[in-house]
Amino acid sequence: MEKSLKEISDLVGGKISPEYESVMINGLENIEGARKGDLIFAVDPHIEEAKQSKASAVILPLNVENFPLPSIHVDDPRAAFAKLMNIFMPKLEIKPGVSDKAHIGENVKLADDVTIMPFAVVDDNAEIESGVVIYPHVYIGQYAKIDQNTIIYSNVTIREYCRVGKNCVIHASTVIGSDGFGFTTKNGIHTKVPQVGNVVIQDDVEIGANVGIDRAAMGSTVIGHGTKIDNLVHIGHNCKIGANCLIVAQTGLSGSTIVGDNVTFGGQVGTSGHLTIGSNSIFAARTGISKSMPENSFCAGFPIQSHADWLKTQAALRQLPEIIKKFRKIESELKK
Amino acid sequence: MEKSLKEISDLVGGKISPEYESVMINGLENIEGARKGDLIFAVDPHIEEAKQSKASAVILPLNVENFPLPSIHVDDPRAAFAKLMNIFMPKLEIKPGVSDKAHIGENVKLADDVTIMPFAVVDDNAEIESGVVIYPHVYIGQYAKIDQNTIIYSNVTIREYCRVGKNCVIHASTVIGSDGFGFTTKNGIHTKVPQVGNVVIQDDVEIGANVGIDRAAMGSTVIGHGTKIDNLVHIGHNCKIGANCLIVAQTGLSGSTIVGDNVTFGGQVGTSGHLTIGSNSIFAARTGISKSMPENSFCAGFPIQSHADWLKTQAALRQLPEIIKKFRKIESELKK
Amino acid sequence: MEKSLKEISDLVGGKISPEYESVMINGLENIEGARKGDLIFAVDPHIEEAKQSKASAVILPLNVENFPLPSIHVDDPRAAFAKLMNIFMPKLEIKPGVSDKAHIGENVKLADDVTIMPFAVVDDNAEIESGVVIYPHVYIGQYAKIDQNTIIYSNVTIREYCRVGKNCVIHASTVIGSDGFGFTTKNGIHTKVPQVGNVVIQDDVEIGANVGIDRAAMGSTVIGHGTKIDNLVHIGHNCKIGANCLIVAQTGLSGSTIVGDNVTFGGQVGTSGHLTIGSNSIFAARTGISKSMPENSFCAGFPIQSHADWLKTQAALRQLPEIIKKFRKIESELKK
Repeated sequence: MEKSLKEISDLVGGKISPEYESVMINGLENIEGARKGDLIFAVDPHIEEAKQSKASAVILPLNVENFPLPSIHVDDPRAAFAKLMNIFMPKLEIKPGVSDKAHIGENVKLADDVTIMPFAVVDDNAEIESGVVIYPHVYIGQYAKIDQNTIIYSNVTIREYCRVGKNCVIHASTVIGSDGFGFTTKNGIHTKVPQVGNVVIQDDVEIGANVGIDRAAMGSTVIGHGTKIDNLVHIGHNCKIGANCLIVAQTGLSGSTIVGDNVTFGGQVGTSGHLTIGSNSIFAARTGISKSMPENSFCAGFPIQSHADWLKTQAALRQLPEIIKKFRKIESELKK
Repeated sequence: MEKSLKEISDLVGGKISPEYESVMINGLENIEGARKGDLIFAVDPHIEEAKQSKASAVILPLNVENFPLPSIHVDDPRAAFAKLMNIFMPKLEIKPGVSDKAHIGENVKLADDVTIMPFAVVDDNAEIESGVVIYPHVYIGQYAKIDQNTIIYSNVTIREYCRVGKNCVIHASTVIGSDGFGFTTKNGIHTKVPQVGNVVIQDDVEIGANVGIDRAAMGSTVIGHGTKIDNLVHIGHNCKIGANCLIVAQTGLSGSTIVGDNVTFGGQVGTSGHLTIGSNSIFAARTGISKSMPENSFCAGFPIQSHADWLKTQAALRQLPEIIKKFRKIESELKK
Repeated sequence: MEKSLKEISDLVGGKISPEYESVMINGLENIEGARKGDLIFAVDPHIEEAKQSKASAVILPLNVENFPLPSIHVDDPRAAFAKLMNIFMPKLEIKPGVSDKAHIGENVKLADDVTIMPFAVVDDNAEIESGVVIYPHVYIGQYAKIDQNTIIYSNVTIREYCRVGKNCVIHASTVIGSDGFGFTTKNGIHTKVPQVGNVVIQDDVEIGANVGIDRAAMGSTVIGHGTKIDNLVHIGHNCKIGANCLIVAQTGLSGSTIVGDNVTFGGQVGTSGHLTIGSNSIFAARTGISKSMPENSFCAGFPIQSHADWLKTQAALRQLPEIIKKFRKIESELKK
């Protein structure tokens, strides 16, 4: 969508200098990210910052004068911008009801007001509660249960027996309940250990795109209430993640990792299996958690150190080439 | 599903003290993972361990007395537990046959007893052998072949010409045969090198969720007999993986990596391209394999070292801040 | 497909010794990757290399004599091989048109010559330009736009409002426009920040399998013209990637990373968020980019160093166990 600044000014009842009327706008942006073709808005205390923006135009309060970029002046820039967002990105229309192109298996329980889009599959004996939205190409396995008001985006798989709580959001192509990576090895041949448990996602959990959460060998892999998981995260079988954790992209938790509440894993963190990680801990990006950690840990590095020790170690490491040179010299002088 | 301990005891013909009859159970778990609401079982030598469990109740042999948790006593706890598993998780019913909601292309060869679920697509000239199970939203490309008794979970893509062997399991959202990452660069412009090979998955291979295995530029990317691959693994074009390897989650093998038999890659390992890795090798989690490795390697670290050297290096690194402080002191004293 | 060398020789009008006629061939390969059952071709200067190949047979120029492997001799080995490739891998037939098993929403604009395969969904108000090919199980969200001649493989999700340019290739199970990982935290509870922007993929971009690219919180996440992205890459919300970059597998760029043109990220690289990375930079595999970097950077390591410094640091690190041993000795002698 492309509109002239004049058209936009008219839409929001703004004031515009004639020389700016023909500036063309094709997107709305924030001050920092804006480029040519973008329109931003600015109010105090961000007026100065907006002067440096690469945006093509700015919506400003009425009283701002001598602004270096093309501008529209309005009474309430924030409200004007919100109005434009609805024009540039018209509201989505999610049609409630079960598409006649969806496949609903036998003995499925569907609440009255669910939304199930074309080519979604809800397999036999599954249960979908009130207000759930299921996008196309989602597969809900046998005996799985999705609780109220959860949104499941396209191409997600929820395997048999798994349970997803209320108000969850599961992003596209994520897999809940794939078999855990469990094998016994004899004479070099790996034999599958049956993975007969499930995954339980508690309420208010959000899970990013292309995540894999394995079902328990027995019992449940658990994602606790309010925990938020970013894209491309791996969670092994029998993990028990507490409430309100943050798990940043590309982190991998090995099987049977037990995590407390309010734990933050930065990006690309990894854990060895069968560890216990205490509540209220923070692990910096790339931490390799190779042993159990108490509550309130703040760690980094691989092998893992306290964050303070890691900073010292890394600072020391940078001096190492110089230190070794000097050491070799002193060593040879002392030998003489 | 929720049941009282009395109901459960009746189901397995157990003995139960009256004061435990109203304990409510909603899941079956192992001793280590159990929490409130879970039922576990314990037999020697795990009886002592079970006393510490957080389970709400335990199924025990008849002769165990004075157990601190609510319990049901039966002749064979393992058999009783197995019976309950079939009640808490009723057996899946996989209906054989080709769903009339699946799409079968032209000139496709289907064995008589395949299972193809709704909205799966088997494209023209593909071949599906006896006993194969294909879940919803799977795409089998033109001229692809899936051999006997292989299970392919939902949202998997098997691109054109690729071949999957017998008794394989491919988990949801995995991609077999995406184009290799091959480009020629001239004046900063990257031009695609056609990727006209395929992927060959040999028999008894299991591949986790959200894995990507690229087709060869020419010839085949090969995954050897009995190899098991965890979630979110990347395997570049023209890799040749031997038999009975284990590739743990989030590992990435660059293009043209040649791997022997019985090699284990821990989680989040990476390789440079065009390497040869000898059989019976083990690479610890996070190893960055930057050169070819002989058979029977046991390595870690990035850049890669023998595991023993890596341990020494890491131990030394932790002493470094103290050593540097002392060295600076000695250095200044010697100068005087 | 399996053919005897005699059959193959006849297909390409070649000359073959009688003793080689019964050699069986079931695939075509390159010299390096070939194994038993494979046929390769060789021309100068690769004739010598081909003598070491594990292929079962080789197609050679007429004038090559005394070759140690079974061979077919032809006038133009390359042309003969190309002919065989069309036989071993018959040309794909992509049928233009919109499958009557696809779901096309309301008010969708479809160019005349698009290909939309069974069970693809193009949601309301989306726009699909001329020559676009959409595989099964793709979901194109409301108001999304796909420009000319772009190919979108199976199980891909393009969420609402996102735009994909001309001549792009998006591989299977990739997600474009999932919500950014944005939350505000109060008293330990994480509350979602609405992610109301989109993703803009410019022309000539290729994106691998199982990639996740998050939509902007506001404005656009941008992938610049000609940039190529490998499998399992994560790109956070509001990233702006320049033109002609290469992003190798399993790399993760945190939110609001601003990248110039012609930047190469090796495999498994990570960035902290809100960084600016100058054009024409190269980051070795596993680099952890923890601060903004100028143009023409060539870096490695985590924390990041210049590549030269990283090499020095790593070389020094390997001497460290020995140095510490010697230092302890000197220290104790000096004390005496």
